[in-house]
Amino acid sequence: MPVPEDDPVVAVTAEAFADPEYAAAVIDLLGALAYGELTAFERLAEDAKMAPTTADKVALAAMAAAEFAHFETLRERLTLLGADPFAAMSPFQRAVDRFHEHTAPSDWLESLIKAYVGDSLAADFYREVAAYVDADTRALVLETLDDTGHSEFVVDRVRAAIQADPRVAGRLALWGRRLVGEALSQAQRVAAERDALTALLAGGVDRPGMDLAAIGRMLARLTENHAKRMAALGLQS
Amino acid sequence: MPVPEDDPVVAVTAEAFADPEYAAAVIDLLGALAYGELTAFERLAEDAKMAPTTADKVALAAMAAAEFAHFETLRERLTLLGADPFAAMSPFQRAVDRFHEHTAPSDWLESLIKAYVGDSLAADFYREVAAYVDADTRALVLETLDDTGHSEFVVDRVRAAIQADPRVAGRLALWGRRLVGEALSQAQRVAAERDALTALLAGGVDRPGMDLAAIGRMLARLTENHAKRMAALGLQS
Repeated sequence: MPVPEDDPVVAVTAEAFADPEYAAAVIDLLGALAYGELTAFERLAEDAKMAPTTADKVALAAMAAAEFAHFETLRERLTLLGADPFAAMSPFQRAVDRFHEHTAPSDWLESLIKAYVGDSLAADFYREVAAYVDADTRALVLETLDDTGHSEFVVDRVRAAIQADPRVAGRLALWGRRLVGEALSQAQRVAAERDALTALLAGGVDRPGMDLAAIGRMLARLTENHAKRMAALGLQS
Repeated sequence: MPVPEDDPVVAVTAEAFADPEYAAAVIDLLGALAYGELTAFERLAEDAKMAPTTADKVALAAMAAAEFAHFETLRERLTLLGADPFAAMSPFQRAVDRFHEHTAPSDWLESLIKAYVGDSLAADFYREVAAYVDADTRALVLETLDDTGHSEFVVDRVRAAIQADPRVAGRLALWGRRLVGEALSQAQRVAAERDALTALLAGGVDRPGMDLAAIGRMLARLTENHAKRMAALGLQS
């Protein structure tokens, strides 16, 4: 894979990228993340239509615009690494699209919870994966996972809705479980199909990775963080 | 209206804003523009779903994100001027929403033409109005009308579609006329309802404005520019 040596950022990581399997894994990782950000933009923009007020609509639209900015950053890095961003995204299109098809929110509260819980879960997962890549890729991944700064808005709205009508809590708790279940099932599909990405997590001859026990601990951390977020919303997980 | 005197930008325009009618007109102008940008974001994000390829989808999503950035700038200025941005937008909600309801694109090409022709027409109109406001407001308006830089993309796609199937040209030419007709009819509704904004164009005791002949010339300029854009697309106007 061609690496433009004159760029200082890329020059540092050039050594890591000399391993074609590693390079393929990073392109997979950034491609998956980019497609996720692009669809997050689409979904948030779509869900903004359900907002009860213009101010709420603007809050969700701002999250959408932030996701698109992240997408642009990832697209630039993929191009810099000599990859076609669209080709890099395409292997993940089906799983991500399917996740969104199976978790289409039916109302404003479900949209808010999906925006908050879904994006946070994905962010936690990518943060875990980021531990296994070179420093530059890691910095980029962490930057694009930056909280769009609207979590407080979601927590506030959902708690107020539950206070106004406690019966919604049961339905929304179920919704949260469905989001996690669907995310795990699509992640499993990707793991089964993308050897390079899976190999990244499993490690290599000269690269530490995760054994089965470590993957189990990672899943435990992910679900624990999810439970904390559901609790912050006033919901059982 | 409170004007924060310590801000250098605002201090310069403080004199102009001492006239409450003028201040109301500028808030109207920025409110209308802000609501237009917000709905442009929504509509472009929505239309991006019809894109035939992921690359086309990204091009339209980038336009949407640019419109949202403009909206944010206008919202900040309204707040700085002591106005509630949402209250400032609300008088224009009905006309703008109606414009979009009456011009919902039925396919990808109609979306592209609406993005290009509709936004350009609005931009031309606001540029004309900008001649009648103070320098700071004018600079802000012109900045938010900056071409999102994707016109070339639209022209390219539409011309290619006409080349592939010349029969679409007739339908798309009609579509262009409908966009202009609907825009003028909604603009007329706003002009009839918003005295402050109309007074801005008509001028005041110590402020030059447009007489009927000048308004006629402005409409001629707007339709002439529209015809040029349709020609660039390979369409009759």
